[in-house]
Amino acid sequence: MANNEVILLSYWSSMFGVRPQIALAEKEVKYEYREEPMTHKSPLLLEMNPIHKKIPILIHNGKPICESMIAVEYIDEVWKDKAPLLPSDPYDRAQARFWADYINKKVYDPSRKIWATKGEEQEAAKKEFIEILKVLEGALGEKSFFGGDNFGFVDIALIGFYSWFYAYETYGNFCIEAECPKIVAWGKRCMQRDSVAQSLPDQHKICEFVKWVRKHFGIE
Amino acid sequence: MANNEVILLSYWSSMFGVRPQIALAEKEVKYEYREEPMTHKSPLLLEMNPIHKKIPILIHNGKPICESMIAVEYIDEVWKDKAPLLPSDPYDRAQARFWADYINKKVYDPSRKIWATKGEEQEAAKKEFIEILKVLEGALGEKSFFGGDNFGFVDIALIGFYSWFYAYETYGNFCIEAECPKIVAWGKRCMQRDSVAQSLPDQHKICEFVKWVRKHFGIE
Repeated sequence: MANNEVILLSYWSSMFGVRPQIALAEKEVKYEYREEPMTHKSPLLLEMNPIHKKIPILIHNGKPICESMIAVEYIDEVWKDKAPLLPSDPYDRAQARFWADYINKKVYDPSRKIWATKGEEQEAAKKEFIEILKVLEGALGEKSFFGGDNFGFVDIALIGFYSWFYAYETYGNFCIEAECPKIVAWGKRCMQRDSVAQSLPDQHKICEFVKWVRKHFGIE
Repeated sequence: MANNEVILLSYWSSMFGVRPQIALAEKEVKYEYREEPMTHKSPLLLEMNPIHKKIPILIHNGKPICESMIAVEYIDEVWKDKAPLLPSDPYDRAQARFWADYINKKVYDPSRKIWATKGEEQEAAKKEFIEILKVLEGALGEKSFFGGDNFGFVDIALIGFYSWFYAYETYGNFCIEAECPKIVAWGKRCMQRDSVAQSLPDQHKICEFVKWVRKHFGIE
């Protein structure tokens, strides 16, 4: 499959934007990274994703692929000869899709509320976030990665949130490792991979960013 | 691939439950349909889907596949020699997944509010529902089915709602065909397929069911 022109529209702090970045790095695909302005949506973004108007957008030979995990699956199918991200067995593939879907549906809302709300709402969000991570710890079990010995689809779905853990802990005043040691160990394991380490933003930079957003939106 | 034992746990009125039913019918896979009781969740359901505790659940040789479109994709991968549901080209596959995801995210909430709310909330829901159907009409274009000439993945994602159109119209006091003639024509086209006609519940039965639910929950 020709790899003529690959562009990724993203935003540096997005836990969704790093997903196709990591997948492209795993496949060793060269691409142009274009940072979207934070203050407005670029004409290219609006042209390429008129439905959701959101990053990340993978543009392959001029054609857009929107929604981060759909882009990851596309990358896995187009560059299929290297570093498979989904397992080959249909049942294992369905399980991987189930957990990526679970992460998509469950993790973002409570994690955002940890730094964007206060009082009872924040406490409920922390509780919910930990409960969800514990479910994911159950799915991880004693394995190195969600799919077993190899880094793959579900790891890519979740790892973007790991950069935000320090901000969640800072503004939520709690320790994720004390509650979910296996998830934190898994995050450290993922960070040992170049594809992840080179794609994820620095946790302190994320914490500074959250500080700025809270101030900007009058949350403090 | 062995087709030893296939069981589908579902509920007759569910627009999500019909998705794996239609996929199994397209593939001509024999299976046992088990109607879940409406009043409580069966021990088998709780055992097979402890995370979401929801139907539909496809059980293949004792192993559960949860989330309806993940089950459809599993069916397409296991029984791959007959009636392909996803296209073979990676870009077309990504597009099909994008629209199925759009339907999953957008259609249910406003459609439910059409019969479950009143006044301004109901009017807003009708408006939103029509806007979403118009976006889907744009994706359908002049094609027979969402994927082109052949019935497939996106059609399966949406068609379950078609049985509910009459109930939406009855309780919303509006005409979907007047607003979205292409979607209604598409629905009629889908209904000409045995796989769809045999899986979808009767629209009048759905309307009676909605009447009962409204009464039961004191919406009237």
